[in-house]
Amino acid sequence: MHTDIGNALGGDPALTRDGLDELDADVATAHERIADGMADDAFGYTALNLPETADPDRIRNAVAPFADSEAVLTVGIGGSALGAATLCNGLESETDAYFLDNVDPEHTSRLLDSLDLSRTAVNVVSNSGTTAETLSNFLVVREAMADAGVDWAEQTFVTTGPEGNLRNLATKHDLPALDVPEGVPGRFSVLSTVGLAAAAIQGHDIEAVLAGAAEERDRLAGSLYDSPAYAYGATSYALAERGAVTNAFMPYAESLETFAEWFAQLWAESLGKDGRGQTPARALGATDQHSQLQLYRAGPRDKLVTLVRPTERADRGIPETDLEGLSYLGGQSLGTLLDAEFEATEASLTAANCPNVRIEIDRVDERGLGELLFGMEAACICYGELADLSTFTQPAVEWGKKAARGLLGGGEFAEAQAVRGKDRLVVE
Amino acid sequence: MHTDIGNALGGDPALTRDGLDELDADVATAHERIADGMADDAFGYTALNLPETADPDRIRNAVAPFADSEAVLTVGIGGSALGAATLCNGLESETDAYFLDNVDPEHTSRLLDSLDLSRTAVNVVSNSGTTAETLSNFLVVREAMADAGVDWAEQTFVTTGPEGNLRNLATKHDLPALDVPEGVPGRFSVLSTVGLAAAAIQGHDIEAVLAGAAEERDRLAGSLYDSPAYAYGATSYALAERGAVTNAFMPYAESLETFAEWFAQLWAESLGKDGRGQTPARALGATDQHSQLQLYRAGPRDKLVTLVRPTERADRGIPETDLEGLSYLGGQSLGTLLDAEFEATEASLTAANCPNVRIEIDRVDERGLGELLFGMEAACICYGELADLSTFTQPAVEWGKKAARGLLGGGEFAEAQAVRGKDRLVVE
Repeated sequence: MHTDIGNALGGDPALTRDGLDELDADVATAHERIADGMADDAFGYTALNLPETADPDRIRNAVAPFADSEAVLTVGIGGSALGAATLCNGLESETDAYFLDNVDPEHTSRLLDSLDLSRTAVNVVSNSGTTAETLSNFLVVREAMADAGVDWAEQTFVTTGPEGNLRNLATKHDLPALDVPEGVPGRFSVLSTVGLAAAAIQGHDIEAVLAGAAEERDRLAGSLYDSPAYAYGATSYALAERGAVTNAFMPYAESLETFAEWFAQLWAESLGKDGRGQTPARALGATDQHSQLQLYRAGPRDKLVTLVRPTERADRGIPETDLEGLSYLGGQSLGTLLDAEFEATEASLTAANCPNVRIEIDRVDERGLGELLFGMEAACICYGELADLSTFTQPAVEWGKKAARGLLGGGEFAEAQAVRGKDRLVVE
Repeated sequence: MHTDIGNALGGDPALTRDGLDELDADVATAHERIADGMADDAFGYTALNLPETADPDRIRNAVAPFADSEAVLTVGIGGSALGAATLCNGLESETDAYFLDNVDPEHTSRLLDSLDLSRTAVNVVSNSGTTAETLSNFLVVREAMADAGVDWAEQTFVTTGPEGNLRNLATKHDLPALDVPEGVPGRFSVLSTVGLAAAAIQGHDIEAVLAGAAEERDRLAGSLYDSPAYAYGATSYALAERGAVTNAFMPYAESLETFAEWFAQLWAESLGKDGRGQTPARALGATDQHSQLQLYRAGPRDKLVTLVRPTERADRGIPETDLEGLSYLGGQSLGTLLDAEFEATEASLTAANCPNVRIEIDRVDERGLGELLFGMEAACICYGELADLSTFTQPAVEWGKKAARGLLGGGEFAEAQAVRGKDRLVVE
């Protein structure tokens, strides 16, 4: 992973090279804390050890019974699904991957109707074994399998913590069970059992994912100028402090669309606290430069735009043409056009004083995704250290969970009362 | 469409009922200007006449030759694709719909490899007939059809302006041709030929889409308290002026995911100018309440959160269970759970003083989508009037287009020089 922060300097919000140099002393301190956290296997920080501690053989063995599946269905929500989806949607495979990461009844029914359940492996992912959405979906999937005459226990495995419903279920029905690593919040779990199992069933080289991640880990260093991950984290932090409240995250590759979603959850949930944080806004190049670019260039100067691309792609030529005004395209390729648009967007933002960062990997493959995923995690943790935030907690997410549970009669929670007191002003 | 702005008041940024009452005089003026624009068929405003001026019979006739297609492939970018995608991805059909709205060579190749091109109808959409991305993709599709032994001219139709490459091509090869309506910018074109053709091939009731839109048009009135669309536009504007720089747009339905994308382009491209505008950040409920909610609730008080849902869904029961701690779920339904989460998120935001708006339709069907699409367009135009912005232009998008074209040798543009002058500070 390369990070080019040249265009992050001298724009509006204003960040100077001197400002960055000054911040670099804090990056050194942040790096020490991060390295200490890794060495101590401290909560959260231990996620950065996964390139070494994840056990790809263990994962391969657990999913071996499902090697011939036509599809793999991951039932999970938030960090329990998005890491796996990033890998599966980023890489091509003959085995389809699906995700039940919502509780939309219409979507669930359509998806289950479309699958050959007798050829589908099901991975139920919940650390606690009590996540309402995940367990509800699992109960629905199990019923659909029974209705289809399929033995659910033959095709299901679980990824869960040391105890709870899913662990008990695995024991009772002799299901393969993968361990959620201790001390790793869901949004930092992509490089573990949680993110890698579905990719393994799809036949992807999960060792290469970990090798790419390890490469970024080896580049963590006491200066932002020596570490692509910290360069991004520190620059984002410095710009946010100066008024870049939005991080418009825009990969130029369809295969990185889910990666942008994964980034958005990582950034929002880790850094959105104490009245601070930077709002991630997902976009996709070149498509969105036909709309979002208007806002980025001419709207409020409150943004950092993050542009991500692979430097190599399997390209495709544009046929020669005699269509009027289009001869300049003939003999070019779609990849050349996409790169020209990338560079034009970058220049367009810079000319309008909108700070932007370029992040590049060689290819969207296992290794490249490993680099990106680890790099963004380390960037996020670096930002959290610099801002003195509690990066690994998510107290505000819990409020809504309790309120929903209370509404459904799952216990008495003060939060549920607030729901019932809503002010209405309805225009119809 | 119902808009409930009760939770938009009394939060932070602070908007009071008095403040809204005061703004209502400006809404009356805005409505007059909008009504005048509609009456005069003025540029942009005429989009609000589409419920009446669109000709569904004409569309049905043009696409009749493609009724037996297995799939419909729309080749377009920005507003030329996103409206159609919103309808096609929102509604279920046995005819698949695909979109080439990017120039990613890997994505294009994978998609074309996966299609039975002999059973695929192709709709090429470009008002000018010179859009680089669209015409490049069309040339690639045409070549792929030739390689597959398919007569492209038998399966292709165009949606374009009165002259240009696509119009000439249609004449030369006797292709069905639909007219892009005059005076309607791409992002406001969903209720025209541009948005409706693919949906018609999928067998959807496009008259019902227009009827839903007409219903919202009939509710446009000189007070925000009488018009759900203006209630939303005026509230968004008032909050943006008070510091809600982000509009977190969060439907609670998987089928509305593309609608959120469509909203994001509408809002960004129409209102992001003169250093103003509100940044749309897409999210999806309930999934993203496991991450984004942390930021919305505990991060900076710079947001409006827009929650959208249908009040009716085809529900699905959750089977009874003896799993520990989950008996409260058994006998409920996924829809009940999703609604509880919606209401919990709403209350969670309100308890944290984060302004939020609830928008509801009866169902995600043709009529409901027509209401939503028209409602958001009218809301956007209302916002633009209140903020005195040039809602229907997109000058900043053009800069990047020229730069890209210059880079590819398609002419001499000063913009292309700026690209070559990039400052680099690479960390690797």
